[in-house]
Amino acid sequence: MSVDRPLIAVYPGSFDPVTRGHEDIARRSLRIADELVIGVAHSATQRKSGLFEIEERVAMLREVFAADERIRVVSFEGLLVDFCRAQGASVVVRGLRAVSDFEYELQMAQMNQELLGDFETAFFVPDVQYSFLSASLVREVAKLGGDVSAFVSEPVLGRLRARFQR
Amino acid sequence: MSVDRPLIAVYPGSFDPVTRGHEDIARRSLRIADELVIGVAHSATQRKSGLFEIEERVAMLREVFAADERIRVVSFEGLLVDFCRAQGASVVVRGLRAVSDFEYELQMAQMNQELLGDFETAFFVPDVQYSFLSASLVREVAKLGGDVSAFVSEPVLGRLRARFQR
Amino acid sequence: MSVDRPLIAVYPGSFDPVTRGHEDIARRSLRIADELVIGVAHSATQRKSGLFEIEERVAMLREVFAADERIRVVSFEGLLVDFCRAQGASVVVRGLRAVSDFEYELQMAQMNQELLGDFETAFFVPDVQYSFLSASLVREVAKLGGDVSAFVSEPVLGRLRARFQR
Amino acid sequence: MSVDRPLIAVYPGSFDPVTRGHEDIARRSLRIADELVIGVAHSATQRKSGLFEIEERVAMLREVFAADERIRVVSFEGLLVDFCRAQGASVVVRGLRAVSDFEYELQMAQMNQELLGDFETAFFVPDVQYSFLSASLVREVAKLGGDVSAFVSEPVLGRLRARFQR
Amino acid sequence: MSVDRPLIAVYPGSFDPVTRGHEDIARRSLRIADELVIGVAHSATQRKSGLFEIEERVAMLREVFAADERIRVVSFEGLLVDFCRAQGASVVVRGLRAVSDFEYELQMAQMNQELLGDFETAFFVPDVQYSFLSASLVREVAKLGGDVSAFVSEPVLGRLRARFQR
Amino acid sequence: MSVDRPLIAVYPGSFDPVTRGHEDIARRSLRIADELVIGVAHSATQRKSGLFEIEERVAMLREVFAADERIRVVSFEGLLVDFCRAQGASVVVRGLRAVSDFEYELQMAQMNQELLGDFETAFFVPDVQYSFLSASLVREVAKLGGDVSAFVSEPVLGRLRARFQR
Repeated sequence: MSVDRPLIAVYPGSFDPVTRGHEDIARRSLRIADELVIGVAHSATQRKSGLFEIEERVAMLREVFAADERIRVVSFEGLLVDFCRAQGASVVVRGLRAVSDFEYELQMAQMNQELLGDFETAFFVPDVQYSFLSASLVREVAKLGGDVSAFVSEPVLGRLRARFQR
Repeated sequence: MSVDRPLIAVYPGSFDPVTRGHEDIARRSLRIADELVIGVAHSATQRKSGLFEIEERVAMLREVFAADERIRVVSFEGLLVDFCRAQGASVVVRGLRAVSDFEYELQMAQMNQELLGDFETAFFVPDVQYSFLSASLVREVAKLGGDVSAFVSEPVLGRLRARFQR
Repeated sequence: MSVDRPLIAVYPGSFDPVTRGHEDIARRSLRIADELVIGVAHSATQRKSGLFEIEERVAMLREVFAADERIRVVSFEGLLVDFCRAQGASVVVRGLRAVSDFEYELQMAQMNQELLGDFETAFFVPDVQYSFLSASLVREVAKLGGDVSAFVSEPVLGRLRARFQR
Repeated sequence: MSVDRPLIAVYPGSFDPVTRGHEDIARRSLRIADELVIGVAHSATQRKSGLFEIEERVAMLREVFAADERIRVVSFEGLLVDFCRAQGASVVVRGLRAVSDFEYELQMAQMNQELLGDFETAFFVPDVQYSFLSASLVREVAKLGGDVSAFVSEPVLGRLRARFQR
Repeated sequence: MSVDRPLIAVYPGSFDPVTRGHEDIARRSLRIADELVIGVAHSATQRKSGLFEIEERVAMLREVFAADERIRVVSFEGLLVDFCRAQGASVVVRGLRAVSDFEYELQMAQMNQELLGDFETAFFVPDVQYSFLSASLVREVAKLGGDVSAFVSEPVLGRLRARFQR
Repeated sequence: MSVDRPLIAVYPGSFDPVTRGHEDIARRSLRIADELVIGVAHSATQRKSGLFEIEERVAMLREVFAADERIRVVSFEGLLVDFCRAQGASVVVRGLRAVSDFEYELQMAQMNQELLGDFETAFFVPDVQYSFLSASLVREVAKLGGDVSAFVSEPVLGRLRARFQR
């Protein structure tokens, strides 16, 4: 047995919107994966209320990663396992910031081990400067008119301003 | 930029002794790495008091992974970063079981990001049946004469019996 | 003072639906309790949005535990303390899987010590194979068409299929 | 550089309703602050569904702290940073009870360090008898007709009874 | 199958020295157990350095629980499982205060489920006033000449004073 | 009642050695305190094995804070409460980085509330770039010959090099 080449990884999430922390995790995962598929999950699998439509999230991600030809952005419905198979991926990538993340991620990884069998979840830690950052905090601050330019990239910043301008 | 091939990963630890949980993490890491170097750290970097000598730990690991030609076992002194460079590795692999693990691992990964620069730490979650397992619990139970055959492989079991037989 | 016999315990929850993890906790509690009353709480006390109606949850629980004559299944509204008194119970049983559970459970147990006075909460740990399992994960996976046969018993499986068949 | 006098602190929250735990934190903060502004946040910044209207929460807080002339109660919309500036405050006060609190608070404090610059968050631990107490538990118990007189002061108790009397 | 009567529980620990928190857990466990055996573990199973000799710890526990004829105090060496069997016990009792406790206890309970088979671990939460209390904090404060009369009972207080008098 | 002026705070710890994270906490505390006394605890109160002697730790701290005339550095033996009283301090300052810190700090703060009565513990969060930093990690890395110049100031760096030069 050896590693299948090319190694394709899936980075699933809601990315509502993509933050610099997500960007950091995506780029780190390219150290192990030849190709990365960022999978934007439809709301049935989300635990959070949405700000941007799926199509807008995909569009922002594509702008953010326009220069990374090893990254593709795709939305998906249904089970992660089915999405991974359809993408030819053998690894799921997730970021870990905090203990509360960790517990949920551990549960999901263990349930996916039951469901997926031959898939693997690899976790990465973002740069320490993004360790407090979450999409929900970005949404809250942006809604209140705060400056989130340190937390999201230009394509996201523009859309947040358009949404919340006053 | 693309992934360097072959992708070499280092799995550092004290492995005193190697458990089935460690084995599980090592095998999972072979889904992303072409080669895995298991690095047995000398005591300056350990937080735990030792049971087996470094040489014995290396010997047990080699027996356990004798059939995995993509795995090498090496002991090391000094900084993890220097060991990784010497091995040509670009990824560090670690297992995550519990929140207490997670916090220490997060600190180490973040400090290593400062120290290592171009290295990455990838975390894997062991099979749920090993989620409670630690080398220190194995040592405790074995010392007290308990049956640890579910927790360690044959080469380790033999040495534990020889050590604690009564 | 001695233990009142028979010792009646209450296992409260939303059980939406009952999982194999819940079943495991219920059966463990029969090691200390002569009788177990599974109390299905109406939504005012739940933190989660519901999938099954209370009546269906009760029906599934009764099917699952049909062979355990020491277990009764009852729904309740209002305070746990009033339900316990009405059932003649002196012990509340809860399962513990993860740190996030633990904190909420600790808060509830401490508040109940204030409110209940002469009741006691006893916590049990499920078999490690169920340590990642939660009713909300089961609902999510089932909704997406995943196979949850390893996580719930036959009576629940049938109802989930009927609900989400496609 | 020396401490600006008078030192004004802001204690932000939803206070729905104010508990004896909140009261404890407010009074502790007067050991370091000359004046305390309790800031009742409008719902855009809350993570919880509301029971009392903002005006009622403010009214209850004012009654509870009527005798503390160093405490003012004000509602606010928008960013905490803007509210602090408007109040002339240089310190934000928060209570810490549990690990789950702590993680969220840590994230908020770190994001606020980015956003606020010259503000500081000081955390206090409530008296151990309030360590399990939260406004959401008070709401749940009061809704179900339980006795919450140990958890909230008289002005709150009266309003909870009026709201949930049966 | 029904509960074996009398139900004998074992409360294992190092009890160096017994605190009011331990006393609280022991008395709570008598709500489910007909008899409680407090098992004072020899140092091979302890993680902490000792202050009192095993014999002194046993003596203090016996004085503290002199009036509880359902409680016996015994020291033990070796595996908990063997001690439980020798005592005819089917339940192990442990206290839970904090998350760090919880993780260690969860690991131990899961390993014991593997090792013990037909034993069960039941966890209790101490009264909130003891939630911060640990034997190691008591030792530290007493060593430094602090007043620990709120944390330990009279028989322990006398011995701590004799040990650290100055 | 009003705040005593000047407000004196004590920041206790082992500072073996002082890190940039400690420096950050000390400077933050000067936002609430008029004077800060850094109290270097003798080993009876430490949980960690020492690298530098108390006198060296004090000397390094004094060099690091030479320009802050509101900061004094003093070593102490015995109870924190007695040290605070002797210094005329009414507030204890502590840093919070991680959950594992938090639990220990919570326990200590609650025990100190019992012991100290009229003292208060205020917690601060360091800048996110120091959130992974601990004196024990600095000692480990320095021992192994790693570069810790990002983690400690010049006076500490010089002494670490002198100690571990090779």
